[in-house]
Amino acid sequence: MTILPTMPDTFHVYDTTLRDGAQQEGLQLNVNDKLKIARYLDQLGVGFIEGGWPGANPNDTAFFAAVADGGVELKNAKLVAFGATRKAGTTAAEDPQVQALLAARTEVICIVAKSHDEHVLRALRTTLDENLQMVADTVAHLVSQGRRVFVDCEHFFDGYQANPEYSLEVIRTAAEAGAEVVVLCDTNGGMLPSQMGDVVSAAGAIGVELGIHCHNDTGCAVANTMAAVDAGVIHVQGTLNEYGERTGNANLITVLANLQLKYGWPLVPPEALADATRIANAVAGVTNVAMNNRQPYVGASAFTHKAGLHASAIKVDANLYQHIDPLLVGNDMRMLVSDMAGRANIQIKGSELGYDLSDRDLAAKVTEAVKAREMDGYSYESADASFELLLRSELGLLEEFFEVLSWRVITGHEVKPEGDSEATVKLLAKGVLRHLVGEGHGPLNALDVALRGALRQAYPAVDDFELTDFKVRILDQGHGTDAIVRTLIDMTDGSRTWTTVGVGTNVIEASWEALYDAYRWGLLKRD
Amino acid sequence: MTILPTMPDTFHVYDTTLRDGAQQEGLQLNVNDKLKIARYLDQLGVGFIEGGWPGANPNDTAFFAAVADGGVELKNAKLVAFGATRKAGTTAAEDPQVQALLAARTEVICIVAKSHDEHVLRALRTTLDENLQMVADTVAHLVSQGRRVFVDCEHFFDGYQANPEYSLEVIRTAAEAGAEVVVLCDTNGGMLPSQMGDVVSAAGAIGVELGIHCHNDTGCAVANTMAAVDAGVIHVQGTLNEYGERTGNANLITVLANLQLKYGWPLVPPEALADATRIANAVAGVTNVAMNNRQPYVGASAFTHKAGLHASAIKVDANLYQHIDPLLVGNDMRMLVSDMAGRANIQIKGSELGYDLSDRDLAAKVTEAVKAREMDGYSYESADASFELLLRSELGLLEEFFEVLSWRVITGHEVKPEGDSEATVKLLAKGVLRHLVGEGHGPLNALDVALRGALRQAYPAVDDFELTDFKVRILDQGHGTDAIVRTLIDMTDGSRTWTTVGVGTNVIEASWEALYDAYRWGLLKRD
Repeated sequence: MTILPTMPDTFHVYDTTLRDGAQQEGLQLNVNDKLKIARYLDQLGVGFIEGGWPGANPNDTAFFAAVADGGVELKNAKLVAFGATRKAGTTAAEDPQVQALLAARTEVICIVAKSHDEHVLRALRTTLDENLQMVADTVAHLVSQGRRVFVDCEHFFDGYQANPEYSLEVIRTAAEAGAEVVVLCDTNGGMLPSQMGDVVSAAGAIGVELGIHCHNDTGCAVANTMAAVDAGVIHVQGTLNEYGERTGNANLITVLANLQLKYGWPLVPPEALADATRIANAVAGVTNVAMNNRQPYVGASAFTHKAGLHASAIKVDANLYQHIDPLLVGNDMRMLVSDMAGRANIQIKGSELGYDLSDRDLAAKVTEAVKAREMDGYSYESADASFELLLRSELGLLEEFFEVLSWRVITGHEVKPEGDSEATVKLLAKGVLRHLVGEGHGPLNALDVALRGALRQAYPAVDDFELTDFKVRILDQGHGTDAIVRTLIDMTDGSRTWTTVGVGTNVIEASWEALYDAYRWGLLKRD
Repeated sequence: MTILPTMPDTFHVYDTTLRDGAQQEGLQLNVNDKLKIARYLDQLGVGFIEGGWPGANPNDTAFFAAVADGGVELKNAKLVAFGATRKAGTTAAEDPQVQALLAARTEVICIVAKSHDEHVLRALRTTLDENLQMVADTVAHLVSQGRRVFVDCEHFFDGYQANPEYSLEVIRTAAEAGAEVVVLCDTNGGMLPSQMGDVVSAAGAIGVELGIHCHNDTGCAVANTMAAVDAGVIHVQGTLNEYGERTGNANLITVLANLQLKYGWPLVPPEALADATRIANAVAGVTNVAMNNRQPYVGASAFTHKAGLHASAIKVDANLYQHIDPLLVGNDMRMLVSDMAGRANIQIKGSELGYDLSDRDLAAKVTEAVKAREMDGYSYESADASFELLLRSELGLLEEFFEVLSWRVITGHEVKPEGDSEATVKLLAKGVLRHLVGEGHGPLNALDVALRGALRQAYPAVDDFELTDFKVRILDQGHGTDAIVRTLIDMTDGSRTWTTVGVGTNVIEASWEALYDAYRWGLLKRD
């Protein structure tokens, strides 16, 4: 077989989920989402986290401020601020965008530079010389301010094809100005692996350390990244879950697992890689972009076999039918990836919430309960509040604030200003029977109004509760009327936000369940 | 840049959606689904369609019988029956599985052979010599019966690593027995592109034409396929929409588009490739596995840009920001892939249903109506019945059989044997007012019972109508309570099946709309 390349002395695993990944349609990250994802990336062991573009986007500015103020403590990763070269006709020191980059207070800054002559002339509308000067000035200024500087050469591969001398001159300019790494970007994603080697080698002749940034437009983002590594780059960029605009960026976990498990390069601690499946799922919970179950290594289906050609033989020796041991990436061969259901995970989660589950029997009991619920379609990875209610129930610590005697909701053809749905809730709270009706737009809204009304007298705190998000996911698509629906509800009391989960074949029933949990948890934690 | 390889004289584009693709979790294809997909594959211009495993699966046997009886007329593609080498200890002529392959009456047969010594010994539990004899016998027998024979060497790459001599001996045996193509299968999907060339070259030295079959477990299925082509294989296997077990098979459209548009190989007519986006979406409609919008070339997001770094520059010249012209694969730069909304498509669809839309103004009017509905989230690609109702309405040809005055549905906490939901429907049919109530499991079931009851007296035909499938898809995931829901309903009257679509933010309302259309279309077409 082919001899595999040996690992360079320095190698960067660079994540751009929070910047380039967020360019994906339908993916919107607020500051809290970004903080959560940064924490997960740090757990994965990446070396660099590109956090966003301070100055260009108020949300990103706020994120860097939050990190600088201690909003997240990174154990492994360096946070990177992303920006661009200075504008034409000014100096780097005077350019507000460059100033914002420095104000983000990161050790590392990555700036994008045009390296395709046509883009300089037509998109940037400046001269080829001025563009080189912009690269030189900006890099030199940032270096003079004590920053480590990486330079992303945008459209490098297309630029090299159009005008190789100019694109290489951009690299040379960045290197001479003090850039630590120059990253070759296949911005339009049109490259094939067989085309990578020659171009990377030509750039490598300049003598600066190189990086690679690929998109999946030919289905080859990972392979192009691997080909660039084979040709000598020491820095790979990618995103979690293949996030990114169009067809997405290179899947960073796939690249990492390929390098670590196939090439044998020790890039992150084995126990961090063994946490990859949980981390990928948790990040999908934050973005609420449905996890691609079929993504390599960490997808729920990545090691799943359907009854058929292999089923009987798998019993002989599972390793004959899988390319790696799934435990190496925290996955398994079963149908369902049960992120929470391992006892160790449950113990960790419990202690995060302040419960001592060091007793083995106790932990086993809770694990069994979680496992059973996950088999039914529940997912507790992003529904901490429902998990805590389940935990308390298993520990005998669950105080019940009210007892629901009945609920129902009516939806019909009439759309009144008050909505198209009417709900009733009958319950006992503090010994008093309440039977209230509520109207709303859609069944969940009506149920929320009715439930709140029925609880108000006993628990005035519910007036502060607000339903801020409602997510529905169909599990088992293709199973017709029996398809299982999972709903997630986010609720806030103004100071904290909690998430609950409901499951059922009837979407209304699943929504009610999540709503019921949301009120119970809110009451449990009210001041 | 790298010099691209030239096209061999013979090159096979071989689809295995109906066989290996159907190994995907949650993907179930009945005979009708398979016939539909075969028709789409033929339109795409693939050379070979692997239809399934006759004899091993009654559904597949029925599919081959249906094709042989004229169930689908293939203009471009050859249908292939898939099976295995004969069992140990018998002859090929006497093996019922081999007999079933011949009974499928296809010109081409593809058989899978073990080529990894450990799999022969431990999974097949026979000797290495007997396995070679099984390959030789089976190929020779099928060839003697006038068939073209392809041989899939299962686990070839792992087998080559474990015991290169034996795995190559399997190829040699198949070739000497008369196999036209021997296909190297990366069954476990663990290969990287840099490892492909040496192995393919070693196999190529035997002198038989080679094929390649890859899975995406390292994120490199397409790239591994391309690497094998670079090393000389003349036959590529893959599936539509990356279907397949675990992480899926090589995406055949991506491979095809890479070879045709990047290498410049004229594998299918340009107009067929320009139909690829519609075909991929239509097949997703048949499988009801949500389309991966971010797949290369044909995904709805494949050429979509989010406001950001590129937005202003795209206006200068879109081609600076896309790796190919999206029209080459029937895609476009807009947010929404509107499969139906082109006037030419509408005219074709209309004539398929028996409506003359050759008048430009008329076609434009219908196109506008479809476009407006698609903007709201409707999809007519797989909902022909709703499309025909819309078409008739625009043409002034829609007879209304009943008028709904009101409907509503109640869901609540009580689960009785009759169900958890109760619906009422009030309508006018043939001048008579009917107000009926129905109970059921879930709101849709209850509405169906009530609507059927209200129509029965005026239209006894509704008693033959049966709701056979109900699909829900959440559009715009992540948009909270405003998320748009699309529902598809399949209904049958025993002799034909029709599909309708409903859309709304309230899932009940969307379901009702599809149900209402389903009854209207059924009444329109009743005998």
